[in-house]
Parts: sequence; structure tokens; C-alpha cells
Amino acid sequence: MLILAFESSAKPASAALVRDGKLLAQSLQVSALTHSRTLLPMAEDLLKNTGVSLGEVDAFAVAHGPGSFTGIRIGVSTVKGLCWGAEKPCVGVSTLEAMAWHGLAAGGLICPVMDARRAQVYNALFRIEEGRPVRLCPDRAIALEELAEELRALGESAFLVGDGASPAKEYFDAHAVACRLAPDGLVWQDAWGVAMAAQDKPLISGAELLPVYLRLSQAERERQARMEQEKG
Amino acid sequence: MLILAFESSAKPASAALVRDGKLLAQSLQVSALTHSRTLLPMAEDLLKNTGVSLGEVDAFAVAHGPGSFTGIRIGVSTVKGLCWGAEKPCVGVSTLEAMAWHGLAAGGLICPVMDARRAQVYNALFRIEEGRPVRLCPDRAIALEELAEELRALGESAFLVGDGASPAKEYFDAHAVACRLAPDGLVWQDAWGVAMAAQDKPLISGAELLPVYLRLSQAERERQARMEQEKG
Repeated sequence: MLILAFESSAKPASAALVRDGKLLAQSLQVSALTHSRTLLPMAEDLLKNTGVSLGEVDAFAVAHGPGSFTGIRIGVSTVKGLCWGAEKPCVGVSTLEAMAWHGLAAGGLICPVMDARRAQVYNALFRIEEGRPVRLCPDRAIALEELAEELRALGESAFLVGDGASPAKEYFDAHAVACRLAPDGLVWQDAWGVAMAAQDKPLISGAELLPVYLRLSQAERERQARMEQEKG
Repeated sequence: MLILAFESSAKPASAALVRDGKLLAQSLQVSALTHSRTLLPMAEDLLKNTGVSLGEVDAFAVAHGPGSFTGIRIGVSTVKGLCWGAEKPCVGVSTLEAMAWHGLAAGGLICPVMDARRAQVYNALFRIEEGRPVRLCPDRAIALEELAEELRALGESAFLVGDGASPAKEYFDAHAVACRLAPDGLVWQDAWGVAMAAQDKPLISGAELLPVYLRLSQAERERQARMEQEKG
């Protein structure tokens, strides 16, 4: 199965072409440019440079969240549009599960961390078993303090990946939690991980694809607060 | 320092933009298309999509060998042309040292392996120390049998990377040599590794940049054999 995958959940944006679990091509960029401008051109260049046509792609895959609300919306919208236009199915995968694939070489306990603001991180824990990450808990928004306690209780060095890995490493070092930071080439979430995580997931239609935010957006939180105030 | 790096030593081709040791963007493709057609368009797309101009690049870097004679010539020629056109310096790095950077997350003994044909592989051994690969021996063309003996003597599981890693894994498994194959996302040599290996190397001019083949090309071997026959 030939998968064209997208990742735009945080600062980096990437597109990858993976056939039957083997990487054919990937483009990744970690820049301040808006993903709405970069994501589709990257995919177009990827197809052009590998001589693959959109018609040959069997399914699209995307990190459906958690992550930046805008980033997730751009990724999910792009794939919805592609599904509709090219009449193909898609797969939505957890951003955190996708980045856990970067822990294969490290092995052991993998701890993806994304900056969730409001003193929290998006996180889930995984363990590498038989060459793939196995999920230990659901995706969640959690305080670094609470995550530190969990890791300390597990008593095992965690391999940190994701856009929030570097600040998490600083916090854990200051609070005596054993951990290692993924090297620079592996620390960022990418579309290769999305394609790998998509392998065993059900194909759905573009219409069925939905963002998974885990938390309410700022606008929704403010609306809810306002409504509760009005009620009271 | 902003480095634009190229890797075209074997089947994959890649270009990467790295600033002060931090990845800004990378494109990689593992396809049958000729690198002479893919390498420069990839770099152009990379700069375009990250909004970086060629003028901002401080130096070019390239894997100067060992590897495919044609692949190496394309990479080295591309960088020589860029140096001349843009009036910038460059760095040539060992293909094997560049791919050893893929062993950072695995740690321990790193064994890059490239298919060198004629029953040999291009190889050198490295050890990850303080977050970077430290060279244990010079680049060489070596029979898998001899490399297997060396690894057995070291008595430590080696992490295999490079385009020859997969067949080497099969050989080592059949000959009781402890080793692990890099996961698919890390096994191919890439331009990120080239940029990382370039960090501590001297800047040279495009004119000084030379391919490092380690062995004579087939044409040169045949010419030498013919001349010796004629002498005799």
C-alpha cells in the first residue's frame, strides 16, 4: 500500500511517501512559515521528484491531533480535500503515536512530549516491543509535574521526542527524572512516523476524518466561561 | 553557520539545511531516478519552501565518498558548481562518518555498511561518545567475512546503518555476529548526517573538493590490467 502522509501538528511540517512500510521519500521543514503555505507544495515536490502520480497513492494519512489547533486543522483539511479530489480513503493517527516511532533505535520507554501551553504537555507513553511502539496509556494533556511523578515511579530512563521534548528534558533534569533527549535529527515529529502508525489503522473516508484536540480551543473555553457566567 | 548539505552516495538522494547543528529542513528520496536529475531540484525546493536564499548559505557540504562512483561524482560536481557560482566554501565529509550520526539514539558501536560490489562493503566503525560518533578505524573496502570476524572479536552488538545494512544483517545473522538493523527511517544515509559531520571539518574551496573513491573504478582497473598485460 502506497501512503502519502502529512504532519503539521506543531512547528515542523512534513510530507512522506511510504510503500508497504518502506520510506520512499520525505520532506521536512522546521521553519516559521505557515503550514497552509508549505504543506501542499512539499507534497507536490515529493511526488514530482519521485515520479509518482497522485493517482498511484492508495491512501492519505495525517496526524489528527493532539497539537496546535491551527496546525491540526491545516493537516486534516488538506487530507480531507485530497480525499475528495482524488477519491481516495485516508487514515487519521495520533500525533503522539506517530512520533513514538522515532524511538525504535533507542528502544525501551518512549515519551512523546508536545507543548500544550497552560502549563501542560500533550503526552502518552509507549514501549518499543518487536520493532514497534506499544501504547501504555491514552493520549492526554498533563502537567509536567504529574508526568515527572509517573516517570519516576516507572524508574526507567525515558526517551523524549517531539516539539516539547527539549523543555521537558530541562524540567526532568532539574527534578531528578531519568531521561534522554532524542538527537536533533529524530526529535521532531514527522510524516514518516504518521505513515508507520497508519499501517494497522482502518481506512476511513475524508468526511469521517476529524481533528482530535483533547482540549477545548481558547475560543470555546471563553465561550463556555461566558455562558456559565450568563447562566449564574 | 548555515550549511546546505548533499548526499548522493548510493540509491537515496537528499539535501538538508542545518543551522549551527540544528535541522531546518531536509528532503530525502529513495527512488530509481538519477541523482543528476533530482539533487538540485530538491535543494531548490528546500530553499524555496523555507524562504532561505542561496546567498544566506555559509557553506555547502557533501558526502565525498566512498560510494557509487557516479553518485559521488554527481554530489561532488554539484557542490563544486555551487561553490563557483555562489562564491562560497564547502566541506567534504566521509559518507560513512556522515551515516554514523544515525546511530546517536542507539548508542554504542555503530557499523555503517555500503554495498561496494566485488564481494566487499565500504565500512568504518564508530562509537557514540558524548552525543557524537567517534571514529575507531579509517574508511575501507572490506569483505563481509573479515568484518564479521572483527565484530565477533569486539563482542558487542553493532548498530548497522547504510544502503548495505540489510544484506549485512542477513550475513551476520547467519554467522552468529551480534547486530541490530537501523529502523527504516534511519537506515539510509542522508544529508542531515553530512551536515552534522561537516561541523568540525575545515572549509575548503570548490576547487579543492575531491571525490574519495577508496578503490579504482572499473574503467581504471581494466585499463591497468590491459597495460600490465601489454607490458608483460
